[in-house]
Amino acid sequence: MVTFKDRRTIRKYKKDDISEAQLESLLFQASRAATMGNMQLYSVIVTRSEEMKEKLSPLHFGQPMVKGAPVVLTFCADFNRFTEWCQLRDANAGYDNFLSFLNAASDTLLYVQAFCTLAEEAGLGTCYLGTTLYNPQGIIDLLKLPKLTFPVATITVGVPDECPEQPDRLPHLAYIHEETYHDYTANQLDIIYYYKEQLEENRKFVEVNKKENLAQVFTDCRYTKKDNEAMSAGLIEALKKQGFL
Amino acid sequence: MVTFKDRRTIRKYKKDDISEAQLESLLFQASRAATMGNMQLYSVIVTRSEEMKEKLSPLHFGQPMVKGAPVVLTFCADFNRFTEWCQLRDANAGYDNFLSFLNAASDTLLYVQAFCTLAEEAGLGTCYLGTTLYNPQGIIDLLKLPKLTFPVATITVGVPDECPEQPDRLPHLAYIHEETYHDYTANQLDIIYYYKEQLEENRKFVEVNKKENLAQVFTDCRYTKKDNEAMSAGLIEALKKQGFL
Repeated sequence: MVTFKDRRTIRKYKKDDISEAQLESLLFQASRAATMGNMQLYSVIVTRSEEMKEKLSPLHFGQPMVKGAPVVLTFCADFNRFTEWCQLRDANAGYDNFLSFLNAASDTLLYVQAFCTLAEEAGLGTCYLGTTLYNPQGIIDLLKLPKLTFPVATITVGVPDECPEQPDRLPHLAYIHEETYHDYTANQLDIIYYYKEQLEENRKFVEVNKKENLAQVFTDCRYTKKDNEAMSAGLIEALKKQGFL
Repeated sequence: MVTFKDRRTIRKYKKDDISEAQLESLLFQASRAATMGNMQLYSVIVTRSEEMKEKLSPLHFGQPMVKGAPVVLTFCADFNRFTEWCQLRDANAGYDNFLSFLNAASDTLLYVQAFCTLAEEAGLGTCYLGTTLYNPQGIIDLLKLPKLTFPVATITVGVPDECPEQPDRLPHLAYIHEETYHDYTANQLDIIYYYKEQLEENRKFVEVNKKENLAQVFTDCRYTKKDNEAMSAGLIEALKKQGFL
């Protein structure tokens, strides 16, 4: 069994399929994760068809994992199913609001991580696509997501066809705080980010992008203020259309 | 080792402490979870002191796990650390927006679930407190959370002093969709919620609360429209104050 501390994201997969039985079993086992009031506020859309992968691919900015994996899973916050059940029982559901979205999104993300851990223990590889939040409306339209559902995470799954280097992680002192949050001194930040900044691959990114340092690669190339603000607006628009705002 | 499908939430703990070394090791191992752009957009506030537990307890509506557990962990979405590093490096950070909040919250929740799974594999018990989102401002003030951080989940941890029944889960057909979302017929909803509705304990809830059915217990007693709307407003207010909206 792969231990969690040895895990890595897998972006290249063998042609092998994942059986429906194995996928269902993993998705069911993962449902043992904590869930608010035992409501299980999530749904999973399973993409196996080439046609749907073709259409999903540009919504994830052409990342090759979408077309390269046998299975793509779009995990959605889902208050629709619960609300429909309430309506059927003459109960006055009040889950068309922002708290309910965050509750359902939380349920979903715990479920996603539980699924990934179980899939990796079973020898599969997974890749988390953060792009789901960049263009939710396109995904909503393609997957026909009704009101009170929202796509929050996409995972590609398959049999690993690579074993990449493990990326660095920050020292645990970077993110553990005793009793209250302790803000960082310049010296502490230097120490926390030292290892990341001196890595050969990161030095190359700085050079290739003609920046002064790694932080500027993040702010000027990878995750810019302009993009974040434009995508925030789209996200809020989509949340309104889905009935959560 | 406990397998994931046997897991249950643990609300009663033995007096045994959890050593700093074990906690740090688990928190570090969990950092192997997927994280956006390898930014690790989270922080954990560790509460061990009785004084802080006393103060946290009412913010979690007096749930006894807060004072009964040796360790309480508040997991926070954190774009403060990364932004401070950017500022130190003359990089123009643009993470004071809604997308960045959701990115950081996603990182945090994956990390939370990875931590819980590892803690449970190590023989510890955990309980997820959804109340973190009900009154974030109180938690922000108590834990001195700076701008661009936000509490998203609280976990109590300790050596289990109970082994409760496992709660029911929906059949996997309830939340798995092939290729596109398939909405539910009344008949499907009857089937999906049948097991939950006929459980002895749930029938009792209906009786005690003088309701017609279980759905009404949820909508009229547990998670009401009025509460959800009031708490949504507080949540949005807090997100604005923390600089994410």
